[in-house]
Amino acid sequence: MARMLKKNYLMTPGPTPVPIDILLEGAKDTIHHRTPQYLDIQNEALENLKYLFQTDNFVYTMASSGTGAMEAAVANLLSPGDKAIAVNAGKFGERWCDLCKAYGAELIELDVEWGKYVRSEEIKKALEENPDTKAVFTTLCETSTGVVNPIKEIAEIVNKTDAVLVVDAISGLLAEPLKMDEWNVDVVVCGVQKGFMMPPGLAMIALSDKAMKIVEKSENARYYFDIRSYKKNYPDSPFTPPVNLIYQLVKSTNMLKEEGIENVWERHRIMSEATRAGVKALNLELFAEKPSNAVTAIKVPAGVDAGKLIKFLRDDWGIVFTGGQSQLKGKIIRIAHLGYMSKFDIIIAISALEMSLNKFGFKVELGKGVKAAEEVFVNEGV
Amino acid sequence: MARMLKKNYLMTPGPTPVPIDILLEGAKDTIHHRTPQYLDIQNEALENLKYLFQTDNFVYTMASSGTGAMEAAVANLLSPGDKAIAVNAGKFGERWCDLCKAYGAELIELDVEWGKYVRSEEIKKALEENPDTKAVFTTLCETSTGVVNPIKEIAEIVNKTDAVLVVDAISGLLAEPLKMDEWNVDVVVCGVQKGFMMPPGLAMIALSDKAMKIVEKSENARYYFDIRSYKKNYPDSPFTPPVNLIYQLVKSTNMLKEEGIENVWERHRIMSEATRAGVKALNLELFAEKPSNAVTAIKVPAGVDAGKLIKFLRDDWGIVFTGGQSQLKGKIIRIAHLGYMSKFDIIIAISALEMSLNKFGFKVELGKGVKAAEEVFVNEGV
Repeated sequence: MARMLKKNYLMTPGPTPVPIDILLEGAKDTIHHRTPQYLDIQNEALENLKYLFQTDNFVYTMASSGTGAMEAAVANLLSPGDKAIAVNAGKFGERWCDLCKAYGAELIELDVEWGKYVRSEEIKKALEENPDTKAVFTTLCETSTGVVNPIKEIAEIVNKTDAVLVVDAISGLLAEPLKMDEWNVDVVVCGVQKGFMMPPGLAMIALSDKAMKIVEKSENARYYFDIRSYKKNYPDSPFTPPVNLIYQLVKSTNMLKEEGIENVWERHRIMSEATRAGVKALNLELFAEKPSNAVTAIKVPAGVDAGKLIKFLRDDWGIVFTGGQSQLKGKIIRIAHLGYMSKFDIIIAISALEMSLNKFGFKVELGKGVKAAEEVFVNEGV
Repeated sequence: MARMLKKNYLMTPGPTPVPIDILLEGAKDTIHHRTPQYLDIQNEALENLKYLFQTDNFVYTMASSGTGAMEAAVANLLSPGDKAIAVNAGKFGERWCDLCKAYGAELIELDVEWGKYVRSEEIKKALEENPDTKAVFTTLCETSTGVVNPIKEIAEIVNKTDAVLVVDAISGLLAEPLKMDEWNVDVVVCGVQKGFMMPPGLAMIALSDKAMKIVEKSENARYYFDIRSYKKNYPDSPFTPPVNLIYQLVKSTNMLKEEGIENVWERHRIMSEATRAGVKALNLELFAEKPSNAVTAIKVPAGVDAGKLIKFLRDDWGIVFTGGQSQLKGKIIRIAHLGYMSKFDIIIAISALEMSLNKFGFKVELGKGVKAAEEVFVNEGV
């Protein structure tokens, strides 16, 4: 029986594929972090981050997963009993709610049906009903549903109040436009294993002056994630930084700077449109009401066992998609187009869908999805 | 003028030199963490860690610096108002105190003069005076002073009470014997950038049953460092793990297992004895009352500017020693013999001292320190 070589294609919304040049940066000699030589390296990364976050504020890095930076936001902005609004429109919105509860906040939870985006009017209403709200927590791209939320509109509303707006941009940053200063977003948190094309292990957070004033007054117990320590030591680190990840961050941020942030956004937009075109041409339905540029969520067609399909693609063909989490388990398939990806990665993804769906009981015409994706690329002139 | 090539020799107590085989493991393709393929990898590392911690308990890994695991211990073992004893015998003992205060504990601070070790009788006395103590926090090797504390004796005392013993073994583990289960140490925290020969970014914590019972009841606000989440998910991770660091952890722990933990301990003992012999032969004085096997602290001789000496060695010869921290700034020089080091690294360290001290106003006889170090190695038959 003929056999193909299994090559690996990581198409998950984090970790995302890491370019070999970035992998090899991490293999450079570890140097001591309390030296001027190291500080120059870290400083270069931090300066680049300001551009990528579109802010003049400091961007702090911390050794942790993205959740660590989310906790930093909650622990530093709220004191026990403070009122907070959090949008729960998926698993990562739910994480904001869990964090607010863990830190003893009085939580106003805005429940949005998973798959829908949050209307800025709902936030406006919640703020009017709760004028003593200290912070609003939401998500740029809700990775679990593939939905993008209207952060610019939300920021316009929150900015008129005393509350600060905190955005989980972990999977969204670089895939979706986010202009921290221009839009008046107070806090942006991110992780490096998404748009930044890096292995996981480093989180980032930037805060506006309005947010920093609250940080100084917060009464929550905190230490490792105490933003005051990061501010005091900037551009140095209060604790041992993950030196080799910082080498990689320099490389990653220089690559992104060279591409230019508008081009990075455009690349993600076009890849996501091509993916959606391919998916729809196969008569599959999109799950997200307002699909993000980072990840496309597809409704699992009747009769198809998503778990088996995903396992087959991963173990036999090396194509790594992800399924749904929590309440969406078995209901959606997610294809990421995030980070170090370009047009032929989308062709591979759609081709893998076409060739595998027929095996799993959903009839599709071979080549039809790929054709639709190609048309998007050709029409965009890329 | 003749010139030498500058090669780099990292002789700091963390980060420590990383073998090229471990660096290259980190350059392997990042895979998705929610796959059986990844779980097998993580599980191999976690099983190896049990051996290296000398415990049957689970060892949890978390993306953070070592301080993150220290915070995990404090946040999970104490509730606000709980009484805790912490030994402050250096900068890292001080960190335990800062963490206890940050989490609202009633802190009994045992102040030990920096450079001295903590007597187990002092802990006994403090426990007798405070029978309601919930936890005792101390340090195996106090990196800032080069002192090793008598953990086995301390554990015998604490084990007779209801309190749990928490040991910061970040720089000490693998350099010093520590038998978690046999000695009844309740909590051991560690980081990978020391004896584990890895780049920084990953912390570890193991807890006894006695400690886990307290964790379940703790009322502190916590999320990212909530041990309950790690226990629930074990051997999986509650949050995105630093995948490439885990690849490196597999390599590192397999290398250490192959060497054998007794041999690892012996190697560090012999390296530290040779270092001390070399230092003393140069008429320099040791700073630590009870010197650790991880790092040797030397008193700066009168007339020598330690800052200038350290800068010269680093920038001109590539030899990276460290000076004193906080109150010890300018007073000591620290030479680490920790992790991926062997006898010729010690020869280099002593030779660098010999050749540089003469330049900085302290007369030493060339070759005398190296001879003394060599004698130790020859006598030990290595």
